[in-house]
Amino acid sequence: MISFENDYIAGAHPLVLNHLVETNLESLSGYGQDIYCENAKAKIKNACGRQDVEVELLTGGTQTNQVVISTMLQDHEGVIAADTGHINVHEAGAIEYTGHKVLSLPHKEGKLQPEVLKKYLEGFYADETYTHMVFPGMVYISHPTEYGTLYTLKDLTQLSDICRAFRIPLYLDGARLAYGLMSRETDVTLPDIARLCDVFYIGGTKVGALCGEAVVFTRQNKPAHFITSVKKRGALLAKGRLTGVQFDALFSNDLYFEIGRHAIRMAEKLKTVFHDKGIPFYLESPTNQQFIILDNAQMERLRRQVCYSFWEKYDDKRTVVRFVTSWSTTEEDLQKLEDIL
Amino acid sequence: MISFENDYIAGAHPLVLNHLVETNLESLSGYGQDIYCENAKAKIKNACGRQDVEVELLTGGTQTNQVVISTMLQDHEGVIAADTGHINVHEAGAIEYTGHKVLSLPHKEGKLQPEVLKKYLEGFYADETYTHMVFPGMVYISHPTEYGTLYTLKDLTQLSDICRAFRIPLYLDGARLAYGLMSRETDVTLPDIARLCDVFYIGGTKVGALCGEAVVFTRQNKPAHFITSVKKRGALLAKGRLTGVQFDALFSNDLYFEIGRHAIRMAEKLKTVFHDKGIPFYLESPTNQQFIILDNAQMERLRRQVCYSFWEKYDDKRTVVRFVTSWSTTEEDLQKLEDIL
Amino acid sequence: MISFENDYIAGAHPLVLNHLVETNLESLSGYGQDIYCENAKAKIKNACGRQDVEVELLTGGTQTNQVVISTMLQDHEGVIAADTGHINVHEAGAIEYTGHKVLSLPHKEGKLQPEVLKKYLEGFYADETYTHMVFPGMVYISHPTEYGTLYTLKDLTQLSDICRAFRIPLYLDGARLAYGLMSRETDVTLPDIARLCDVFYIGGTKVGALCGEAVVFTRQNKPAHFITSVKKRGALLAKGRLTGVQFDALFSNDLYFEIGRHAIRMAEKLKTVFHDKGIPFYLESPTNQQFIILDNAQMERLRRQVCYSFWEKYDDKRTVVRFVTSWSTTEEDLQKLEDIL
Amino acid sequence: MISFENDYIAGAHPLVLNHLVETNLESLSGYGQDIYCENAKAKIKNACGRQDVEVELLTGGTQTNQVVISTMLQDHEGVIAADTGHINVHEAGAIEYTGHKVLSLPHKEGKLQPEVLKKYLEGFYADETYTHMVFPGMVYISHPTEYGTLYTLKDLTQLSDICRAFRIPLYLDGARLAYGLMSRETDVTLPDIARLCDVFYIGGTKVGALCGEAVVFTRQNKPAHFITSVKKRGALLAKGRLTGVQFDALFSNDLYFEIGRHAIRMAEKLKTVFHDKGIPFYLESPTNQQFIILDNAQMERLRRQVCYSFWEKYDDKRTVVRFVTSWSTTEEDLQKLEDIL
Repeated sequence: MISFENDYIAGAHPLVLNHLVETNLESLSGYGQDIYCENAKAKIKNACGRQDVEVELLTGGTQTNQVVISTMLQDHEGVIAADTGHINVHEAGAIEYTGHKVLSLPHKEGKLQPEVLKKYLEGFYADETYTHMVFPGMVYISHPTEYGTLYTLKDLTQLSDICRAFRIPLYLDGARLAYGLMSRETDVTLPDIARLCDVFYIGGTKVGALCGEAVVFTRQNKPAHFITSVKKRGALLAKGRLTGVQFDALFSNDLYFEIGRHAIRMAEKLKTVFHDKGIPFYLESPTNQQFIILDNAQMERLRRQVCYSFWEKYDDKRTVVRFVTSWSTTEEDLQKLEDIL
Repeated sequence: MISFENDYIAGAHPLVLNHLVETNLESLSGYGQDIYCENAKAKIKNACGRQDVEVELLTGGTQTNQVVISTMLQDHEGVIAADTGHINVHEAGAIEYTGHKVLSLPHKEGKLQPEVLKKYLEGFYADETYTHMVFPGMVYISHPTEYGTLYTLKDLTQLSDICRAFRIPLYLDGARLAYGLMSRETDVTLPDIARLCDVFYIGGTKVGALCGEAVVFTRQNKPAHFITSVKKRGALLAKGRLTGVQFDALFSNDLYFEIGRHAIRMAEKLKTVFHDKGIPFYLESPTNQQFIILDNAQMERLRRQVCYSFWEKYDDKRTVVRFVTSWSTTEEDLQKLEDIL
Repeated sequence: MISFENDYIAGAHPLVLNHLVETNLESLSGYGQDIYCENAKAKIKNACGRQDVEVELLTGGTQTNQVVISTMLQDHEGVIAADTGHINVHEAGAIEYTGHKVLSLPHKEGKLQPEVLKKYLEGFYADETYTHMVFPGMVYISHPTEYGTLYTLKDLTQLSDICRAFRIPLYLDGARLAYGLMSRETDVTLPDIARLCDVFYIGGTKVGALCGEAVVFTRQNKPAHFITSVKKRGALLAKGRLTGVQFDALFSNDLYFEIGRHAIRMAEKLKTVFHDKGIPFYLESPTNQQFIILDNAQMERLRRQVCYSFWEKYDDKRTVVRFVTSWSTTEEDLQKLEDIL
Repeated sequence: MISFENDYIAGAHPLVLNHLVETNLESLSGYGQDIYCENAKAKIKNACGRQDVEVELLTGGTQTNQVVISTMLQDHEGVIAADTGHINVHEAGAIEYTGHKVLSLPHKEGKLQPEVLKKYLEGFYADETYTHMVFPGMVYISHPTEYGTLYTLKDLTQLSDICRAFRIPLYLDGARLAYGLMSRETDVTLPDIARLCDVFYIGGTKVGALCGEAVVFTRQNKPAHFITSVKKRGALLAKGRLTGVQFDALFSNDLYFEIGRHAIRMAEKLKTVFHDKGIPFYLESPTNQQFIILDNAQMERLRRQVCYSFWEKYDDKRTVVRFVTSWSTTEEDLQKLEDIL
């Protein structure tokens, strides 16, 4: 059975796992106060091309969104997101759990449109009753989005400009950031993100780590007493080394980017396979997630030999399904898929 | 200056105020354990035509929505509302403050459509990822809606049937209930609401009280230890008599309904004035709120002599404004308005 | 039946009620934007001897504590209180509901001792693990305390000095403030409180209002967007006039202080009655609450003719009960009590 | 430098790490739906001697306490703990963050005394004002406690009886459970805990895992929709295998208990070293944590060669420090310590 179910089906990338093994017996302080956390942070700063950013390591994506958003919002504020945004749909209300509303706006292929955002913000303050409403206090975007799509440098620049005009932070969820940065169709670099966003996270779980996400605060804006707020949310690992060692490996010798590059290569081949077989796309993305349309009989047959994800019903006879590549996808997997199809 | 700004511009209806005055010196127990709270509850049960409902008195509308919704939802659940619903827009995130998401659906003239609701609920459980999503745990509607519109008995019956099929409570926000019940275009009675809804509230603040809303639980479903949960939310009045005495007056001699009837009479005359003057309606409602379109110059002139509410921009030259009647609106007010127009 | 059960058994002081009646038909803006709220705030500033304080009106005591504490604390902070403090015992967890811990310290007759506070604060920062603990972010005291006792000017000055040294606000819960200010055994004035505390509230509910508490921020420290935070907590009255008119009356012609003076006079006579009858005190307070010890048979007999509050068991045969005076206590009530005893 | 700083200074026990390595490349479903999570749960059930318990895996101790307590309490309830309890002191207010109060009671060597608990519960319901107070809704104990002390079977039985009489769950925090179960001075077994507690957790992080705690619900009382509540709290690992594989290893071939046995053996030798050197104990525990008193000069000298934890000041000249053993403590470490002393 081959699997394109998602990008977290395997354990850790071998180089990441190996670093855990080789450092395993060292005595280290807890709670992120160890040399590997320090190294990881330093290497991430270098990758961002900025020594003045602040880096913090957390364990999972929903947790990271919850911690970052709830510690950066003021009491009267909520966070703006595309209505398809992960925080608005697939995090079980984790943001609302912290007492803050997700203010959802219409999306286009998973993306928040700068003009839609601007109109919303202007309209908010033009409404005479706004003191009775949740203030827009942050903008959340995911890059790649939940549909595998990407913002262009122009998009990001416009979003950033709007956020700065309204003095609210722009937050980028980079759960799959490597796949965005290494896409063949992007003009956005990690330093661009560090320059245009006020805070973002570099996803580890979906890019070769067992767990772990690295938050980057770019404007000396890390909330005061952040470690206590993290602890208060049950999000502080005793063995902080677990994430430190993994990010130290991911940001050594360009591994993070290499993982992205490999998955993109596999995704391009995957697209070719579908095209060659005449299978229609629902959304052909520039990253590691591809959405195709299968008729239901075909889908059932395939299910016996290949793992993939249900996405949504297309119509009564057809279904949208998602195929995902990652560091663990092999040429052999693709060959098998081609043979099966 | 005459005012049609809203239905809470005046103090209490004279009969309500008088009851406060005549009972003022009595020594009564606190926290709602007094004879007037008891009387009010008994009279409300009678008005509902049901002795088995449970009635609780609270102070304001947002508070009531917050208390009812947060005590009735389970941890994993959110509340469905029309995207124009008061809890989704004008309560500053009071529901999210309690850790629960408002799941918004498209509206039609402020109303949640039964077929939209049904499709959403079916779609939710058909989505394979639903355990990662906020479960629909309650349906919130307002009646009259924020646009002054009303559900028909058929609408309410359908919504109720859907809720019961999915085993979630239907909750009706009756901040302006009197104006809905006494509309000339409604086929819905208070006993209908008590039969079809699982919980609802009868608004006092906007219907002649200084403050106060009466929550009715219709299926022996009042949350256990409700008074402690109310206290925990800062919503328990020490002098519970304040709401008890007022609702005792409102539900004596049909006063609540009489207030509704009067405001509707005034609203019908108001509509005639606008029609006679050829002023276009944005939404001509069957209740006490009317939405008209004024060109901006006209609007500014009017502002000097009449109070009304800004609603929204219609286009660059025209604005939607709201006129509201209440127990305190007089024939004289209407005459003056006509003269001014 | 005469009642000394508490200081909120009656409705409003006649002058307060009268002001509600005389202003009832005026058309006023909602949400506290009316002339009576404005007048009330101006008069309170005068009473504090300070024009630079900020005043906000809320509805009840628990609500006020919840709103003030949760909007002033930072995420990583909790509020210090005597273990007998109202927020620690009798508010059903209203502070914790907002996500913040009450850090309780031992009391002495209901009072937080300056030296206990200082030792705690020094110890907190001396503990190497403090980043894993809830930071002390505010000090809560009640004056009079739950036992009717009072801080001296020296106590308050010391508490204030400690708070300022540790840069945390001192918050005084003045639910019964009038009875403290008018005590014959106090050296503390309202201007003293406005000078030494960073925020406090002047209780209305227990001092002649139907409801209402006035919060005073003394150091330009009112949280930003306070009205939105109030709304978010379900605490914003639509008819803000209800509290505005009442405080306007309470702070006209010294009424607030006169109510305090009267209740103290009644309390002094009450104490004399108990002394004369040889009834032992559990705590003889300088304010309007008196705690006496009754043997259980005596208590049961008395219960048929007089209302008072159970406080706690003293031993198997005796019980501590509380007698309270207020604006509505009369010489006649005291005479009757004396006759009964 | 040798370290006795705590029981999470090293990575994973080699057998745990090895299991991660050998399963690393397998394609597995996410979110705990994999064969290793299944195996781990089955093995834990066996170790508990009960097939009818429900097991769930989480990541860290504070997170586990937060998830378990907040999903099991009702709205009006709080959790009772010894005032030294981890949730009351060292979790940065993680319980209060979920809206629930920790009701603290005096401890004796870190333990909650059955008679103190019983008196508190009886007193609560005897207080006429209890509806205004936080209801006791759960009892939290840690075993071993924060002081390394242990409840006897008799203690646990009494606590369990009291909890069942008052119909509230008894919850045992077993962050260091292996060290309690393998103590030479205990009469409590894992099946005893599964029988007497309503819910408890088996700590992994401090017993040889990189992360991970296993919650056991013993009375078919796992909260409904638990996985959604876990997700909502940001506590659901995408790669659930990370905890599944580790607990699968820990509960294979008695590894969990063997780790406990080893650490106890090391602790016994450690105690002998201190006794031989005439170093006074602050608290000589039957588990893997030992508290000794060092004079400050001695402490500073030692610090250069040995890691240990500051506990608290004993007096101006002496300090209490903590030494901890674990699976990674070696005979060689002890020999070095002896030589240094």
